Amino acid sequence: MSLTAVFKPRSIAVIGASRDPEKVGHVIFRNLLSSFKGRVYPVNPNADEILGHRCYQRVLQIEDVVDLAIVCVRPDIANRAIEDCIKKGVKAVIVITAGYREIGGEGIRREEDLKKLIERSGRKTRIIGPNCIGVYCPSSGVDTLFIPPYKMKKPQDGRISFISQSGAFGLVILDWMAEEGVGVNKFVSYGNGVDVRESELLEFLAWDRDTEVIVAYIEGVENGQEFMKALKKATKKKPVIIFKAGKCEAGKKAAASHTGSMAGSYEVFRGVLRQCNAIEAENIQEMFDYARALATGKYPKGENVAVITNGGGMGVITADCVVRNGLKLAEFSESTVKELSKILPSYASVHNPLDLIGDATAERYRKALKIVSNDENVDSIIVITLFQLAPLSSEIMDVLAEANAKTHKPLIVCSAGGEYTRVLLRSFEKQGIPAYPTPERAVKALRVLTEYAKKNGE
Amino acid sequence: MSLTAVFKPRSIAVIGASRDPEKVGHVIFRNLLSSFKGRVYPVNPNADEILGHRCYQRVLQIEDVVDLAIVCVRPDIANRAIEDCIKKGVKAVIVITAGYREIGGEGIRREEDLKKLIERSGRKTRIIGPNCIGVYCPSSGVDTLFIPPYKMKKPQDGRISFISQSGAFGLVILDWMAEEGVGVNKFVSYGNGVDVRESELLEFLAWDRDTEVIVAYIEGVENGQEFMKALKKATKKKPVIIFKAGKCEAGKKAAASHTGSMAGSYEVFRGVLRQCNAIEAENIQEMFDYARALATGKYPKGENVAVITNGGGMGVITADCVVRNGLKLAEFSESTVKELSKILPSYASVHNPLDLIGDATAERYRKALKIVSNDENVDSIIVITLFQLAPLSSEIMDVLAEANAKTHKPLIVCSAGGEYTRVLLRSFEKQGIPAYPTPERAVKALRVLTEYAKKNGE
Repeated sequence: MSLTAVFKPRSIAVIGASRDPEKVGHVIFRNLLSSFKGRVYPVNPNADEILGHRCYQRVLQIEDVVDLAIVCVRPDIANRAIEDCIKKGVKAVIVITAGYREIGGEGIRREEDLKKLIERSGRKTRIIGPNCIGVYCPSSGVDTLFIPPYKMKKPQDGRISFISQSGAFGLVILDWMAEEGVGVNKFVSYGNGVDVRESELLEFLAWDRDTEVIVAYIEGVENGQEFMKALKKATKKKPVIIFKAGKCEAGKKAAASHTGSMAGSYEVFRGVLRQCNAIEAENIQEMFDYARALATGKYPKGENVAVITNGGGMGVITADCVVRNGLKLAEFSESTVKELSKILPSYASVHNPLDLIGDATAERYRKALKIVSNDENVDSIIVITLFQLAPLSSEIMDVLAEANAKTHKPLIVCSAGGEYTRVLLRSFEKQGIPAYPTPERAVKALRVLTEYAKKNGE
Repeated sequence: MSLTAVFKPRSIAVIGASRDPEKVGHVIFRNLLSSFKGRVYPVNPNADEILGHRCYQRVLQIEDVVDLAIVCVRPDIANRAIEDCIKKGVKAVIVITAGYREIGGEGIRREEDLKKLIERSGRKTRIIGPNCIGVYCPSSGVDTLFIPPYKMKKPQDGRISFISQSGAFGLVILDWMAEEGVGVNKFVSYGNGVDVRESELLEFLAWDRDTEVIVAYIEGVENGQEFMKALKKATKKKPVIIFKAGKCEAGKKAAASHTGSMAGSYEVFRGVLRQCNAIEAENIQEMFDYARALATGKYPKGENVAVITNGGGMGVITADCVVRNGLKLAEFSESTVKELSKILPSYASVHNPLDLIGDATAERYRKALKIVSNDENVDSIIVITLFQLAPLSSEIMDVLAEANAKTHKPLIVCSAGGEYTRVLLRSFEKQGIPAYPTPERAVKALRVLTEYAKKNGE
């Protein structure tokens, strides 16, 4: 049973669509009208039309085939709406509504009822949620995120897909990705996961051609065996990065009261990740630092790194990081040294890290990059661009895009600083060049890329 | 011999001031005209006036007392300009000019000549540099940074002073501080350090009343004994955070060709830091993450941390970080639990991390903060504010400022996300509340604060 209807439906019904701009059902319906290319139907028994669209009392009344339904009604009527979707033969339902097992008491009963409903239906209608934030897929326009746009930006289309048990956490990360210029292919928050959970999503994304890298935020898994099986399959297809929350006892308890899932032993979980060849991110930064390097699909042949900089200090710091992360500073070949001496001021020392000196222009970078990327002793390149130094301007953007297109070696940018720098970092990312604000983050990502290539013979 | 003239001069001469807006000497002179409250004199034998100010051929011709001179002439005439300053009795000279030992050959001879000049003069005129970016002191307006303002922002006045061997690195960090809303009291880049070096600056800043925390970026020290003595003295007065570059062999070599200093053994250096009670930052992020927490002057009495959040997942992640960093999750007292249950929705679980739930308003935070900060079992508080969740608005700013003013316990904010979030993070910082974009950075800073308090009986 495919999850295609979740991400690429032909038609969507919004059950709980509302005329009130404050309501989630209004925001989702309005967003879909502008982002989604297919047909969208509002469902609400108390309205005749919403934003100029004829409103249906129940999903059953829609004459058209409905591929995907989004449920955002009150908790006490949510199961009935889902039952309607099953009757109608809707392929997938995203249940945004909260008030299930996470609130205890009647919520637990409500979730049990929903589970029975799903069992009885033979799982022909697939359910995402409840208690979730839903799906965001920029290429198809499926978007159930109901956040005011001034508070949160949404990332552009990209090659990374991201699954998150926690909805709020997912939003935070999407907002962050947008800020750093990292694209997303498919995002799913599956909340309480009464039907579709991490394992099935992993398998689906493993086979998804548009997804180059999978990132998963997991608090706990319900079925360990199923998870391991899915993870093993997925890592055979592409890199899978996992960040686990609920590592310590207190964290576990908190996770249990948050999504009601059991976190289990972290040591066991870690063992599983290693055994399944998944990449563990130790903090939230690492998740996407690794993902954006892996998403380029460019892998180094070995561990020899060239560092090119216009700031000596940053070169030194980056060299330290390279060695501390178990990578090597490439030794330039004789001809590289000879060629580089020709283009550099007489007092510049032609070593790795290569200091192009504070007065380096984009043109000097261009020449140096050409020489260094042709050196057989070099497997990957970190380019440090400090924009605080006067002569370096945004021309460097074209220079790096050109260099990146001409070489099969991974090229990673590091640029530290404030607003001006951040804007340019974002532009690098959008051109498909992984760009990091500190040497440490750049080098760690390159380490993961190098290790991945070595292990998987890329 | 005091360095006061470097940071609080009454008059400044800019030797190499220029009418050409592209020249460093023009930018520095123009910047000083607007930032510096005292008298500024341009010196240049080839101009009669610059920006409406009478220009002097040599510094000796200025009738007024000159406390500080800034030298930004060509390298071949820089020593002569410095000699003039010594003759004139200028108290301190900042030599921006590069082309000394860092370029080898004639540069080495030039530096030797300068050293002899300094020896002969009896060190009455103190020299910062050469090959440096100089000084930035927002409270007095001394500012020798010659970077176009669109490329780099400068931080506001604050309680952290920062010394950096590398100029470019200093600029990068200042730009970053400005971006994150962290203030600086005094910044010095001392370049080749022919006269004033890290040791003397450490001692000066240790006694400086406006400096609450000292941060130093060091590639190598010339005189180990002197450095240890100064560092020991400084750490008795206030927290000193040190970031060392040139840790590995390749990094050391690069450092040597960058500022011409010998990096020495990193293990030995590390031992010295421990012995002198300095705080080591392991990467550039940590330097100011630690500094801004220490700069508040608020210290926790113990290691029991309360975490308050509006996103369950982030609460779990932060709890993990707390435990992994050797801190403890505070156990709320009975009365705290009772009070909290009154203000929270019935289904919320009243534990630490305290999840105020996604619909939390600033008002709910206010009530929770009041209860938690009065709990004797709580030594410090991390407040997570996810602005992607609909009801949380910038009102939280006032709520946190009020809570922070009312408690002697350290209060730290963590808020992850994009542009909207970053603007608010900056505002927290400007209100004196340390604010971090990831749980890990927040918790690590709190760990350092807690350790410092424990060691030093704060």
